[in-house]
Amino acid sequence: MLTKAELQRLRSLRDKKHREALGLFAVEGEKVVAELIAAGFPLVEVYATGAWVESGNPTVKITRVTADEMTRASHFPTPSNVLAVGRIVRLPLERGALNRGLALALDGVQDPGNVGALLRIADWFALDRVVLSPACADLFHQKVSDASMGSFARVAVHTSDLAQVLADTTAPVLGCELAGDDVHALPPLRDAVIVIGSEGRGLSPAVAARVTRRVTIPRYGGAESLNAAIAAAIVCDNLRRAAPR
Amino acid sequence: MLTKAELQRLRSLRDKKHREALGLFAVEGEKVVAELIAAGFPLVEVYATGAWVESGNPTVKITRVTADEMTRASHFPTPSNVLAVGRIVRLPLERGALNRGLALALDGVQDPGNVGALLRIADWFALDRVVLSPACADLFHQKVSDASMGSFARVAVHTSDLAQVLADTTAPVLGCELAGDDVHALPPLRDAVIVIGSEGRGLSPAVAARVTRRVTIPRYGGAESLNAAIAAAIVCDNLRRAAPR
Repeated sequence: MLTKAELQRLRSLRDKKHREALGLFAVEGEKVVAELIAAGFPLVEVYATGAWVESGNPTVKITRVTADEMTRASHFPTPSNVLAVGRIVRLPLERGALNRGLALALDGVQDPGNVGALLRIADWFALDRVVLSPACADLFHQKVSDASMGSFARVAVHTSDLAQVLADTTAPVLGCELAGDDVHALPPLRDAVIVIGSEGRGLSPAVAARVTRRVTIPRYGGAESLNAAIAAAIVCDNLRRAAPR
Repeated sequence: MLTKAELQRLRSLRDKKHREALGLFAVEGEKVVAELIAAGFPLVEVYATGAWVESGNPTVKITRVTADEMTRASHFPTPSNVLAVGRIVRLPLERGALNRGLALALDGVQDPGNVGALLRIADWFALDRVVLSPACADLFHQKVSDASMGSFARVAVHTSDLAQVLADTTAPVLGCELAGDDVHALPPLRDAVIVIGSEGRGLSPAVAARVTRRVTIPRYGGAESLNAAIAAAIVCDNLRRAAPR
């Protein structure tokens, strides 16, 4: 049985302001929570309905709640059996970290579903890290972890001033444009940063100025553009194809 | 000025049942409506606020509405300047139509946003057609045209019993699986059908039985799967790379 104050605290984690004040965030869903536990993520507490409690994990404090309480605590119209509260940890990005390996840099991607989808792509292609600009959707938004389908727990994600980080980066910085080098003809690149712009406005001028190689996904038909996650996935597939891990 | 009955009729187009009964559907947004007009799509009427009316198109009846009326008629929380009503036209799929060219076949893709994203991909890669199974999101759902970003107007889309259509198809039928042929090693295929399963359950058994070539997008990291639209886009990019149009 949750007190009114406990419910209110869980619900307050929907707002970034409250998440930052408490240093906590909530994730929901058996899959994501299991992935976070498997990844050793610092969970603080878990709220679960009957079914999950019995299959539960002994390393974290579990509070049994009713389906009705879960409905009230949940961010989603169809709540799952489990809601975990984790500690917000922001990984520092060391100087020169983007010089080695493959990274995705998101410049103002505001839709949390798109950020989650991009984390899932980074995970599939085993990118070494993802860097979000401060204007991106908050990494600890429930829809980000939800859309990432568990990849949230496996990918190294940082939030940082992108233009500044890229100024220090010696690896090629790839930007997707309509008039660049054919992505099918990319040379093998073991170190690269792929920058992805915002849904509406593309790259900010300061980040665009740091792009060292413009790449184009060949277009055959009439669509004006591809969605950011689609473009990122095609670039990653071509990079891995040219230089398998 | 719209009468209450007119507003109610426009709002009723949100429901498939009413769309089918009236044989009409609504699309919103300057971009999509412009694309429909450019594509010669049979529009019945257009409702627009001041700015759009002045730039308007003489080939269709335009009714000026207030921003408040548009808000009430619109499907979306942030309405645009224009809402068009079109006649529902369902293209018949001729026998053997999938034997030539590239097609995307969607088997129970239920999210209208995903169907729209897949139409946008089909448009970008100039696929010859898209076939939806009857269990897919309705083609005339506003979120489909919205997510397709205008591609809705340019791609030939059919709704048909997929298992039956594929039984008549001599072109290779490609299904994405975790253990198939590497998509990077596909031979040049000028004729192929790419089947994409539902978000939760994948391909239905009847459609899976018609797959003649299982393809796999190489995975390097930990994500269990890729989203349907992402997988489709990567397969299309590799097909076009192997056999440019």
